[in-house]
Amino acid sequence: MASQSGRVLLAYSGGLDTSCILAWLIEQGYEVYAFMADVGQEEDFEAARVKALAVGAKKFFLEDLKREFVTDLIYPAVQANCIYENVYLLGTSLARPVIARGMIAIADQEGCDFVAHGCTGKGNDQVRFELAFYGLKPDIKVIAPWRIPEFYHRFAGRQALLAYAAQNQIPVQQTAAKPWSTDENLFHISYEAGILEDPNTTPPTDMWKLTQSLEDAPATPEKISIEFKAGLPVKVVTSDQKTITDPVDIFLTLNTLGRKHGIGRIDIVENRFIGVKSRGCYESPGATILRVAHMDIEGLTLDRNVRALRDQFVTVEFSRILYNGHFFTPEREFVTSAIPASQRTVNGVVRLKLYKGNVVVEGRYSDEGLYDERQSSMDELGGFEPTDTTGFIQIESIRIKQWAQANIRKGQAGVQPQDVYGTRV
Amino acid sequence: MASQSGRVLLAYSGGLDTSCILAWLIEQGYEVYAFMADVGQEEDFEAARVKALAVGAKKFFLEDLKREFVTDLIYPAVQANCIYENVYLLGTSLARPVIARGMIAIADQEGCDFVAHGCTGKGNDQVRFELAFYGLKPDIKVIAPWRIPEFYHRFAGRQALLAYAAQNQIPVQQTAAKPWSTDENLFHISYEAGILEDPNTTPPTDMWKLTQSLEDAPATPEKISIEFKAGLPVKVVTSDQKTITDPVDIFLTLNTLGRKHGIGRIDIVENRFIGVKSRGCYESPGATILRVAHMDIEGLTLDRNVRALRDQFVTVEFSRILYNGHFFTPEREFVTSAIPASQRTVNGVVRLKLYKGNVVVEGRYSDEGLYDERQSSMDELGGFEPTDTTGFIQIESIRIKQWAQANIRKGQAGVQPQDVYGTRV
Amino acid sequence: MASQSGRVLLAYSGGLDTSCILAWLIEQGYEVYAFMADVGQEEDFEAARVKALAVGAKKFFLEDLKREFVTDLIYPAVQANCIYENVYLLGTSLARPVIARGMIAIADQEGCDFVAHGCTGKGNDQVRFELAFYGLKPDIKVIAPWRIPEFYHRFAGRQALLAYAAQNQIPVQQTAAKPWSTDENLFHISYEAGILEDPNTTPPTDMWKLTQSLEDAPATPEKISIEFKAGLPVKVVTSDQKTITDPVDIFLTLNTLGRKHGIGRIDIVENRFIGVKSRGCYESPGATILRVAHMDIEGLTLDRNVRALRDQFVTVEFSRILYNGHFFTPEREFVTSAIPASQRTVNGVVRLKLYKGNVVVEGRYSDEGLYDERQSSMDELGGFEPTDTTGFIQIESIRIKQWAQANIRKGQAGVQPQDVYGTRV
Amino acid sequence: MASQSGRVLLAYSGGLDTSCILAWLIEQGYEVYAFMADVGQEEDFEAARVKALAVGAKKFFLEDLKREFVTDLIYPAVQANCIYENVYLLGTSLARPVIARGMIAIADQEGCDFVAHGCTGKGNDQVRFELAFYGLKPDIKVIAPWRIPEFYHRFAGRQALLAYAAQNQIPVQQTAAKPWSTDENLFHISYEAGILEDPNTTPPTDMWKLTQSLEDAPATPEKISIEFKAGLPVKVVTSDQKTITDPVDIFLTLNTLGRKHGIGRIDIVENRFIGVKSRGCYESPGATILRVAHMDIEGLTLDRNVRALRDQFVTVEFSRILYNGHFFTPEREFVTSAIPASQRTVNGVVRLKLYKGNVVVEGRYSDEGLYDERQSSMDELGGFEPTDTTGFIQIESIRIKQWAQANIRKGQAGVQPQDVYGTRV
Repeated sequence: MASQSGRVLLAYSGGLDTSCILAWLIEQGYEVYAFMADVGQEEDFEAARVKALAVGAKKFFLEDLKREFVTDLIYPAVQANCIYENVYLLGTSLARPVIARGMIAIADQEGCDFVAHGCTGKGNDQVRFELAFYGLKPDIKVIAPWRIPEFYHRFAGRQALLAYAAQNQIPVQQTAAKPWSTDENLFHISYEAGILEDPNTTPPTDMWKLTQSLEDAPATPEKISIEFKAGLPVKVVTSDQKTITDPVDIFLTLNTLGRKHGIGRIDIVENRFIGVKSRGCYESPGATILRVAHMDIEGLTLDRNVRALRDQFVTVEFSRILYNGHFFTPEREFVTSAIPASQRTVNGVVRLKLYKGNVVVEGRYSDEGLYDERQSSMDELGGFEPTDTTGFIQIESIRIKQWAQANIRKGQAGVQPQDVYGTRV
Repeated sequence: MASQSGRVLLAYSGGLDTSCILAWLIEQGYEVYAFMADVGQEEDFEAARVKALAVGAKKFFLEDLKREFVTDLIYPAVQANCIYENVYLLGTSLARPVIARGMIAIADQEGCDFVAHGCTGKGNDQVRFELAFYGLKPDIKVIAPWRIPEFYHRFAGRQALLAYAAQNQIPVQQTAAKPWSTDENLFHISYEAGILEDPNTTPPTDMWKLTQSLEDAPATPEKISIEFKAGLPVKVVTSDQKTITDPVDIFLTLNTLGRKHGIGRIDIVENRFIGVKSRGCYESPGATILRVAHMDIEGLTLDRNVRALRDQFVTVEFSRILYNGHFFTPEREFVTSAIPASQRTVNGVVRLKLYKGNVVVEGRYSDEGLYDERQSSMDELGGFEPTDTTGFIQIESIRIKQWAQANIRKGQAGVQPQDVYGTRV
Repeated sequence: MASQSGRVLLAYSGGLDTSCILAWLIEQGYEVYAFMADVGQEEDFEAARVKALAVGAKKFFLEDLKREFVTDLIYPAVQANCIYENVYLLGTSLARPVIARGMIAIADQEGCDFVAHGCTGKGNDQVRFELAFYGLKPDIKVIAPWRIPEFYHRFAGRQALLAYAAQNQIPVQQTAAKPWSTDENLFHISYEAGILEDPNTTPPTDMWKLTQSLEDAPATPEKISIEFKAGLPVKVVTSDQKTITDPVDIFLTLNTLGRKHGIGRIDIVENRFIGVKSRGCYESPGATILRVAHMDIEGLTLDRNVRALRDQFVTVEFSRILYNGHFFTPEREFVTSAIPASQRTVNGVVRLKLYKGNVVVEGRYSDEGLYDERQSSMDELGGFEPTDTTGFIQIESIRIKQWAQANIRKGQAGVQPQDVYGTRV
Repeated sequence: MASQSGRVLLAYSGGLDTSCILAWLIEQGYEVYAFMADVGQEEDFEAARVKALAVGAKKFFLEDLKREFVTDLIYPAVQANCIYENVYLLGTSLARPVIARGMIAIADQEGCDFVAHGCTGKGNDQVRFELAFYGLKPDIKVIAPWRIPEFYHRFAGRQALLAYAAQNQIPVQQTAAKPWSTDENLFHISYEAGILEDPNTTPPTDMWKLTQSLEDAPATPEKISIEFKAGLPVKVVTSDQKTITDPVDIFLTLNTLGRKHGIGRIDIVENRFIGVKSRGCYESPGATILRVAHMDIEGLTLDRNVRALRDQFVTVEFSRILYNGHFFTPEREFVTSAIPASQRTVNGVVRLKLYKGNVVVEGRYSDEGLYDERQSSMDELGGFEPTDTTGFIQIESIRIKQWAQANIRKGQAGVQPQDVYGTRV
């Protein structure tokens, strides 16, 4: 017999919160199916399956989304050098669209009327999930218990959840809860909340899970090379001459190397979509290496004007779109449509040294031909006549001279920098 | 008796090139005054003075421009997080306007008809100097020998210069020329040309002049704090509790710390203003520390929307203006006029750990009040109701649902990412 | 004795809606003060006062905000050429901040705990009012009855309001309601809703209230001139040689002229802040004339690069800020801080012909000196050598040639436009 | 026998200048082929052919490029709403790439070593032609006589050209030269130089060649409709119910209608690429109608965020690229790659009234489904709950309240507009 309230597909994590939500949804008369996405997080999926079914889920779905996470989300973001507020590489933001798409696919297949999630009412992820749900299936109904007063008033605080778990025979891990929250996938791990809410608290050394500390990272540098085609990494050669070419393997290899060498830790105060400032710490080892390498090969192979326009348009806007959960939107479709033309010439190899948190570019080469030693050489006349530059400067200065003459005529020294930034006397 | 061709103020470096230019200008009938700017480079200014006069300069001017370099150029660039092509901190670009202004002041004072410089005809600096000259004094005449065919054909290659130097009793340093060119000031040192023209050549270890290598940098981290007021560093407290407050001292202290800890080396292929790709290596120790700290305190104290607009507008445009030598222009006046309003709230302290090339943010605090722990906390209801977020998401999704429904109605799955970036199967 | 619920300052219009809201608020136990702003709309303020007090308002405030509307809001928008979605001149958006500021001033003075308004729950104005309230007085409490279920369910439809009015002795105008809504101030009048909701319905001729129809506008053109100082209109000389110099008088004069000549009608489908598309018709007679004139004088007097940056930054962002009601925000403070530097040179006179909806520029002049006939003349060598242009083009082409050679080498004709937009063959 | 200097393909107009250039090139020892492009200008091509051969051209080529001009250049510009400095529709800029491509195709086919043109050394067209030549064939050599001192000193002034023409039996039209220059194609005609160089001179009535004056335009409005598919006009229905569907015919029909109704005249001071301000007058009748219609249908059918991003990115950048002659460049390839995704939903019909210079939108409709009457209606609850908007506003105000509270705490009334734009007292 169908439940009276309808069928819900719940984004299930195996943890205390979503287990309580599972039980509570059943209590509200819903038939609950549990959904887990494998996006590369370290997790005992089998234990979660057993637990979900024990708590009362009618079905359990585990979707392996690692490959599409890498190819559909991460790699376009690499091509576009995506970054939020100059620091955050968007690891959580990137995972949300593939998870949401996986959920909607199952919801469609299983005839679920609702999807539910355990995100808090103050964060970015609720927005990212729900806007993705609506962009994929505009008539889907969403249950977000942490925004339902009868739920959040009843479960105000961890003790209430633990009591409810005990009462509902929900098994609880005996380990003490960490004094922060995390979200992990193959791109990164994030830490926020708890003791991190004071932005002046230095994260404890044992918080960082993925990467070696700088101090403990190897004393010996390691050299690798990454080859890009159309802006995508297609080959990594490691220091022991192993060659990796599969997209997922490339990413995982770079993760391993980055973790070993202490690469990719950040600690920032960022601005959430809802307008709240929030402190977050992140480890993105492989992504950090890839970003350095991709930007470097672009220096060698990407036209200056394309690069500048792409930076102002695609990089900034695609990053904001990802952060704010606007992946399944017309503006995302628009912005990403410009990526291929920006990456057509981004072909070549970057040689890197990894050492104690540093990703050092040691050299790069390409057959693309946009770099021309003869042309840039200070030692020879090549490519063009020095006298041409005189003409260039004269033409460039027409407008500036005209403006300077007007200033002088009006006695307006006011525009000179000594007046803007203080007089030197 | 005045020279027949007129009086020239020559930007003099003390090196082979500008010494030969000095002699050549005299040969062409000019009266030559030599000008040197002290912008913090390591230089024997007295030896240069003696040499300039020996070669035939009628007068020699040494201007100490360090303070105005820091306060008028570097600090606005710090406030705006200036960077070119994501990597280069603009050390040479920043020095050019103060040097040009210093030269024009002397040229005005001494009644010089001409200014001359020894920049090559392929680089950025010729453009930066000359556009600055014209922006300050539109009727000044510029002599750029490396763009005058009779000069550059006569002096094609170092041997011709050495021969001319010998012939004109110009003293030449006996040390072998380095196989690259450098430009140094208190912000940075740059390396380019020579062996660096192959972008795949790793710079030799002994090239780097300012900073410790990562490997040789101290094994012990060092902790400092930087206080910002209106986006400017006003106090540095070092690990041994020294407090520095003078703007120039702050910058020099950070330089010393950065050099010690191997901070601020980069190696890039960049795009010169004239459209040529060029490989450059740079060391910007103090500037790198300051950039990390300033961006971090902005995370805590700067409004999200101001930050985003400033990044797209001021940061990008001011950086391009600086790189292309457009400092004394109406667009620079326009762009920098927006800096103060962007930095009004950027007040607070950042705590840093310096270690083997890394500038690690360990915490930050501010009285500014834009960060509110209660508001961002995942553990309490603070600042707003979770139910409000439901409304926010519903409204945010109106447009997206409408678009998704239109897609579904038209059967256009074409906009889904699996079609954009490959199907997952 | 104070009311039990608190004191509310209600934005009162004198119409059916806000009169019912007034009565309803009293019914809910509030003490209500009524507020009206005179922003130049055609209105019987005295009748409204009498009515408000009759319905039960304890006090009535009429604030004349016309001058600050012109000087604080309209003129900065003129300087910045503000426009939304290329068509809408933002007449309603511009009035909201001054009205909100006027209300908050009275609320402060009178010790009101609440402000209330009669905006619907689907439009822009609720957002504009409330964000302005919060930006000025963050702890103010807002009552928006049209978003309170007990109110909007009770008053679903005009009949319910009429019945409530009858029951509460609220006088109702006997004239039939127009089949659209309007908002009027000295900048414009807007029409929306009702029969206009079908975007294919041509607005009835008698809807347009301010301007002559094109067909009925005078058959004789009229010539005027407008003088700008720092981008602001400081003198209008009319065809009968009257000279107007007061800011408000200038605007009202241009309104009169524009209305007479059928200038400034538009009919668009725009995108509201909440993401809903909406059809609106507007008449902005004086503002349309001013916009044409201001953009024209900028052509003569504003540097090219400043203009381009201002267009992309200030014009676009300030327009969006105004439309979305973000006037009292840090980003507005930031964006408008750049206006003065953009308008320093915008000084001069534009001569216009007004005729049947057209604002024709007949000429313009300025002492600013950025336009130089000799320089632009095709008939003489002036300002620079034609050979300089050869150098300019050669340098400009370095990058392009390099790219073209790379394409040829790779056999990639793919980048040529025949492939992008179809082959001509 | 081949000429000693090489073979030149000359862009020939049939006028005095290029006829003299033709003769002069022969005098310099070149073999000259003459090239004319038919881009819709009113011209006696046969007379030009006869003249070119008479003056000494070895071959004459007339290429009909009208269709590719419309489909490859004009229509992408229509899709992108291209405009330069808010006023100029880029008629000359759009023609240059197709003409240059036509020339390079003939130069390739005929083995020409050089291309030559008669553009002055101060204008935009020299740059547009030459950058296009280099982008298509980077090793082509360009002869620009008006930038060669021996040419421009010899032919300083029209008298010298007339004398040379007489001496070389070059037929000269007996009609007096107009006191301005023009460039015509099917998109527009431009007027500049001569008496127009004084920006305060009103263009004489008889200058305007294409369009009726406003005064003489018909007293009766004319109604048409334009249907768009993917942002391109695919059907025009005229007032007499004629239906036009061919791309070129559509453009020509709109031209005829625009000319009749006095539509599309402009008079501006613009900024040339080389940094010189220049006065230009233009008539673009059909293009003006199309622009109004296209922007209107986008209001109905294009997502808000796509529109905003497209405006800031594609519209601005593609317009600048076109104006500056950067069509055959990587950045043009990049920017136009984003057009299709922006126009996917731009499908529908716009109804227009044409009358005395005005293009009045009377209505529009579309099946696209992004406009939803129910949703935008003020009269019904549709699409979303009014209470949702409360949540939206609360969340939108978090950041603003926080900022306002910080201001109040610091006593900084300084950010309120009365302080920015003057106190109201």
